[in-house]
Parts: sequence; C-alpha cells; structure tokens
Amino acid sequence: MSLLANAPARLFINEVAVRDGFQGEARFVPTPDKIALIDRLSQSGLAKIEVTSFVSPKAIPNLRDAEEVMRGIARHPRVTYVALVPNVRGCERALACDVDEINLVMSIGESHNLANMRMTCEQSLEQFAQVMDVVRGGRTQVNGTLATAFGCPFEGDQAVDRVIWAAEQYLGLGMHSVTLADTTGMAHPLQVAQLCRRFIETFPGVPLTLHFHNTRGMGLANALAAVDAGVTSLDASLGGIGGCPFAPGATGNICTEDLVHMFESCGIATGVDLDALLGLARGLPELLGHEVPGQVMRAGKRAELRERRVAA
Amino acid sequence: MSLLANAPARLFINEVAVRDGFQGEARFVPTPDKIALIDRLSQSGLAKIEVTSFVSPKAIPNLRDAEEVMRGIARHPRVTYVALVPNVRGCERALACDVDEINLVMSIGESHNLANMRMTCEQSLEQFAQVMDVVRGGRTQVNGTLATAFGCPFEGDQAVDRVIWAAEQYLGLGMHSVTLADTTGMAHPLQVAQLCRRFIETFPGVPLTLHFHNTRGMGLANALAAVDAGVTSLDASLGGIGGCPFAPGATGNICTEDLVHMFESCGIATGVDLDALLGLARGLPELLGHEVPGQVMRAGKRAELRERRVAA
Repeated sequence: MSLLANAPARLFINEVAVRDGFQGEARFVPTPDKIALIDRLSQSGLAKIEVTSFVSPKAIPNLRDAEEVMRGIARHPRVTYVALVPNVRGCERALACDVDEINLVMSIGESHNLANMRMTCEQSLEQFAQVMDVVRGGRTQVNGTLATAFGCPFEGDQAVDRVIWAAEQYLGLGMHSVTLADTTGMAHPLQVAQLCRRFIETFPGVPLTLHFHNTRGMGLANALAAVDAGVTSLDASLGGIGGCPFAPGATGNICTEDLVHMFESCGIATGVDLDALLGLARGLPELLGHEVPGQVMRAGKRAELRERRVAA
Repeated sequence: MSLLANAPARLFINEVAVRDGFQGEARFVPTPDKIALIDRLSQSGLAKIEVTSFVSPKAIPNLRDAEEVMRGIARHPRVTYVALVPNVRGCERALACDVDEINLVMSIGESHNLANMRMTCEQSLEQFAQVMDVVRGGRTQVNGTLATAFGCPFEGDQAVDRVIWAAEQYLGLGMHSVTLADTTGMAHPLQVAQLCRRFIETFPGVPLTLHFHNTRGMGLANALAAVDAGVTSLDASLGGIGGCPFAPGATGNICTEDLVHMFESCGIATGVDLDALLGLARGLPELLGHEVPGQVMRAGKRAELRERRVAA
C-alpha cells in the first residue's frame, strides 16, 4: 500500500509548548504572557493544550504559577486543557482548577524513571493508583504517558513487550488514553511504524498519542511514520521549543507549525489555523530571549511564492 | 503494505557539501582544506562525491579552484567523482580533469531557470545537447538534474507531466541518470511518494537520485517517503550545509550523517562509516566559521548511551 494510504483524514494536535517548552527555559515567562499565549493558541483550532504542570515550585520554578495560569485562561469549549501531575498532591491542585485532563508520566526505562522521577516504575504505578482513586467519579480524564518508549538514554532500546505491559498497567488503572513518548529523540521511523501498529492492534479503540523530539533530526519523519500507521493524535510544541534535561544541546519537541504545514500539505486536515500559529511562533524569540528551532516560521509556507528577481 | 516494506536493502549516498555547501559560504574554503576533506570523505564509504562546479569564477568565486581540487584529490576506486557544469566550456574543463560524471541542471520552472541560469528551459536543453556531443564516446557519464521538481518558489507547484516531459528530454539526449531536486524545500512526503512512483514506473531501470532541502523541516520525512517508494540514491550534505540563494535564512541540504543515522537505524545499509562522517561534520564549524544544522553531531547517535546521573 502506498504511503499515507492508511492515514486518518483528520489529525488532532496537542500543543505542549507552554508546559514542556517553558519548563526548561532559563527565563521565567511572566504569568500574563503565558495566559495571553494560551488564549491565542485556544483560538487557533488546536485539539488540546497542555497548560502547565502541578509540580513542586522547587522542582520546576518556571511553572510555579500553575494555578494562576489555569484559572486565568479563557477556556475555549472545543479545546481540552491538560495538566501534567506527578502525584496525588498535584492531582488535587489540578482538580481544584477543573482541568479537563490529567497527564501522568512514567518512563519505560527504570533508570530514566529513577533519574527523572526518583522512583522505580513500581512506585510510579502505586502513585498513579492513588491518583486514579482521587480522580474517580469526576469529569476529568486521565492520560498516561510512557516516556522513553522508543529507547532510554541510559539503557538503550526497550523491549516492545515492556511497553505493551506498561500500557496494560495504565489501562488497568482506569486511564482513558495513552501517549507513547520519545523523550530523548531516539525513535526511528521503522520502530515507530512497528510499535504504533502493535499498540493499535493490541488496544483497539484506546486513544493513542505520539510524542516526538527532533533531537536527531528524525522528528517529522517519525510523525509521518506514526500517521502512516494510523495514529491520529500527536504532541507538538510551538516553535519546536522544549527538550529533555538529559539531552543537553539537543533540539526539542517537534515543531507544531512545521508539523501542521507538512500534514496539511499532504492533504491531512488538522483543524489548525497555520497562519495564526506562525504568527505566535514568530513572537517566541522575543518572549524567550533566544532563537527557536521552527523552520516554516523562517522560510514561509511552501505555498507562499516570491517575486522573481530581475536578472541584472 | 507497511512502511519501508518496499525499501531497498542498500542506499547510495551522493555527498554534495563540498560543491552545494561550499559554493554559498561567505568565506573561501582554502584549496588544501577542500582536498583534505574530500579525501577523508572518499574513505568513508560514500558512493559519490560532487566535488566542484566548473563555472565562471566570477559566478561562484568559492569554486574558482575547480581544476586544482579535482586534480589534487586522491581518487578512491569505489567512489564516483562528479562535477557540475553549466555549458560546453565547463564540460571541457571537467573532461580535462577526467571527472567520472558530469551533472547538468535545469529548473522545471521557467522562472527559476531564468533567475538561476539566465536561460529559458529551451536554451538549457540546447546547451545540454552541445554538452552531450562533447561527452559522447568518452567514459564520462552524464546525470541530469531537474531543479524545482517539487515546486518553484516563483510559480508554485509544477505539473508532474512537465517533470516527466523534462526527464524524457534528458534521456533523449543520452543522459545516463536523473536527479529530481527539491531546490527550495517545497516538497512534501505525499508528493515525493507520488512523483517517485510515477518516475520509476515511467522510466524503469533509469538510475534516479533524489535531492532534498530541509528548508521547511521536511527533509528527512521526504527522504523516508522516497526510499519507501523504492528510491535507492539520495544526495545529502555533510553537516546539512548549503542552501539556495533564493531562500534566504533557510537551512540547506538534508544532512548526510543524520540521513545515514536514520536509515541505518531502520536497517537499511548505506555502506557509510557514520563515525567517520560525524568526525568530519564536527570539524565544519571551525572550517566555515559558523554553526551547521546537523543534529546527530550534537546529540550523538541513538545507540550512544549516557551515564546515569546519581540523584542528589
């Protein structure tokens, strides 16, 4: 079958820049700027926005305004607003702000989970069980992210069976959906195609999101492989900001506007206003004080034609 | 059929950094440095190296040492050494240096051909007929590049039938092989898949190379789409250097070592020593006086594991 023959007609984009991007910035993005950006993102047709993380302000000082941001934004009825939470305390804070979705994260690799979360996977799953008890009965859904699903920077490739086992644990706890995350940019397209197909066959009907980093330049190729395998939901970050503290110097998340530009060019609808996103991306360097990796924000859309220079 | 099920077992890489990359640099790369780099590239397992361009030194001052470079390198018997030539004069210079292959370039878009070559496509084809007369009977093969095959920055999308027509003209003139070039990074993966399949069906047995730029972030995704469609030969540039003068601020060619890293990860052999390439790429910033776009040279290969930090 030819490329993208199996692809969905519609893709859903989860914007993570204000959480995954801002958390690692050298400079604190002022709360009103965060709220203004999220409000403009809400108007752009994105399916989801990961707004913030209800963690300890000591652990991630940049997101110490989680409550203010979550309560300050103008919530668009068609957008799902997500918050990352590490534990019951974070979950209670998120629920107090009436988030639509909670995102829980455990790494597939024990070593990475220990380094990142300071817990074994078993301890993470125990915490998640407590979180699910708190959430149960409310309107808030829970997404479970499996970090380092395509490779651990300390352990290398992870067994597909372990990824499937971890997803089973998540679903057994009552989580609604799963994200497979390539936390440090180790995924390659063939691996993505194989793991996505395996997941979809094993868990038909379970909403699946893919989260890629462009650390080794394969980000959009991996997104293409995922969508070719039937994936309908992708995380991405405005301007391509963000990254992983364990991959210094590497670029971050795949870039939302570059992703939208690629798939819309291929005839796959995203529902997103690309011009609006490009405008927001072009404001990031001033907001953050540095250049960002996005490409289309520099080059312009492929459909934007140039005036021909007259030969001298 | 699943992704890459049709892919070749072996990919052939044509390294273009020393021609397509160096030609646009602000600083002249000294001839001995060019020769030393090409000699090390020759040892790395690359199938082809596009060494230089036999153009007017006024048009491209950076390549004014074409003869010195072509005569100064140590030619490896397994590498095909290519030179770009614009006309009969350039062809004669290239033949005097005994190049293995001549590369001729015409843009699919008349406007781009006028801007870039200062000729209509008809005039280009007339020149190429004269070049073929000069080459005929010798051992040097001729590759014809169709620039802007995936879109012209002045005219937009080009009709597939026009690309096929132009390839027919090339083959009718006696050219051995064809390169479809995405000169300004307008190609998208679905278009690549469709045009590659159409070309392969129309011209079975004609050697086909794809040339992509990463201008809009889609470079490796397009390479993936091409290889998925059965393409066996790709141009790429060490460190991702190069670009098109009509796309200012945009990044250049797809990056050789990132491309090799992606396909070798997917189990497709390139014959290339990736560590050797990474070493050469890491020398480019000093040689050129600026950073280069390559990703794997920064992040390291996916298989290079890190020491886990001990939690404080």
